Amino acid sequence: MATYKIGYYQFKPIFGKFEENLQNVLTALQNIEADLIVLPELPFTGYSFKDRNELESMSEDPQNSQIIEELTKLCDKQNFHLVTGFAENNDDKCFNSALLIGADGILQTYRKLHLFNEEKYWFDAGNLPLTVTNINGMKIGMMICFDYIFPEVSRTLTLLGADIICHPSNLVLDYCQKAMVTRCLENNIFTITTNRIGEEIRPHGSVKFTGKSQITAPKGKIIHQAEVQQANLRIVEIDIADARDKMITNTNHALEDRRPEFYKNKLK
Amino acid sequence: MATYKIGYYQFKPIFGKFEENLQNVLTALQNIEADLIVLPELPFTGYSFKDRNELESMSEDPQNSQIIEELTKLCDKQNFHLVTGFAENNDDKCFNSALLIGADGILQTYRKLHLFNEEKYWFDAGNLPLTVTNINGMKIGMMICFDYIFPEVSRTLTLLGADIICHPSNLVLDYCQKAMVTRCLENNIFTITTNRIGEEIRPHGSVKFTGKSQITAPKGKIIHQAEVQQANLRIVEIDIADARDKMITNTNHALEDRRPEFYKNKLK
Repeated sequence: MATYKIGYYQFKPIFGKFEENLQNVLTALQNIEADLIVLPELPFTGYSFKDRNELESMSEDPQNSQIIEELTKLCDKQNFHLVTGFAENNDDKCFNSALLIGADGILQTYRKLHLFNEEKYWFDAGNLPLTVTNINGMKIGMMICFDYIFPEVSRTLTLLGADIICHPSNLVLDYCQKAMVTRCLENNIFTITTNRIGEEIRPHGSVKFTGKSQITAPKGKIIHQAEVQQANLRIVEIDIADARDKMITNTNHALEDRRPEFYKNKLK
Repeated sequence: MATYKIGYYQFKPIFGKFEENLQNVLTALQNIEADLIVLPELPFTGYSFKDRNELESMSEDPQNSQIIEELTKLCDKQNFHLVTGFAENNDDKCFNSALLIGADGILQTYRKLHLFNEEKYWFDAGNLPLTVTNINGMKIGMMICFDYIFPEVSRTLTLLGADIICHPSNLVLDYCQKAMVTRCLENNIFTITTNRIGEEIRPHGSVKFTGKSQITAPKGKIIHQAEVQQANLRIVEIDIADARDKMITNTNHALEDRRPEFYKNKLK
């Protein structure tokens, strides 16, 4: 049996207040005991960019970012790993990214493959393969918010061996939490969906985020769901073996029973 | 706008009583007005076969079956189409099949690709491609019961153009109905999950079926869910246009936004 403490920190980032948002995270996570914590999507910049220019001015190269330096120090001090959303600037491109960070810095980068709504005007679409990273025996995959609606994302991560999908989000509707039950049922994995709370009122409009961060287990069991509008740090203990046993019945295996020769991947 | 009346007949088949089960169906559907009705999985034989031999003795060639003849007459008389489960005998093989039937007989055959639990001892695994059939403007796909847990099945049918997935079932647990909400959300289609009710008490054990047949609409909206243990014929009117509009937001298309070059189909 290999148990791990995994969790999320749901909070209210303030648009454009990097330092304030970073201090919020550093304070909340300063004395906790955990193996893996997931933060929301874009927790340091905020979400509602006016346009591409505004995003460009706020996105950072993670190799040259005080935020990442501080989070790395935090991982080192607290001996855990973090997955965080990040507005990533890379070679004149801007990605809505998730970073897996440990005591030695960034271990893996995921760039959102399926941009939602106006994100298409701000960000470049992800250009890196989906990957799984082994962290002290936990196999970690990452996806971001709207990626959840495409079953191929969590399926691909599962086929690559993921035990836990870390899912930083900025959700405005309530479809996702139910769908994550299905994702965990069909793939027999753990997922940590970390949503943010609060409302962003910007000159061009306002967006309200809906909380309810959720940790979901194999068989589609909801371990915990947060409140709608309340900052919440939650850590639960899981047994990773629950994600390794893919038998649904005595004769049915969630992955090996697939019949890929009958599946279609592309549009006609 | 093209509206259609689609529905299900949830009832209690009696194991081995072909004639009685057929009369039950013929009586229930004799004076209804509908375009498409879905029956449960294996509604004429029942489900809990003792062994392969028993199934072989009870399965039929649909081209030479009184049941299919009677159902065809019913489709002709009532001017609707039926999807029914069927224990299909074909060339010494036995398939857990679904048949799409109209006034001229069988229009399409689907053979269950993912056999559940002990079905693996009784049936041969499906060997036909997933297909979609156009019936008076409705594009119909079929899958059976446990197929639902593999997102590739409903995704493939959607990519082939399905508006409505007919889903004859013999469900014993309650995971499916929630998952069908996700299937309809991610594919923006209609699904008709017809479950059976009642308990089969056979010499080798008993199985209880759980009803709750469900018609689910694009965006994952449950139009209707039946009771747990009550025979139920339900017909609802739908607008097929709801399944054709695949826009999730002004900029997001449920299918065209996919990034198949990043998806993995097979095990590593």
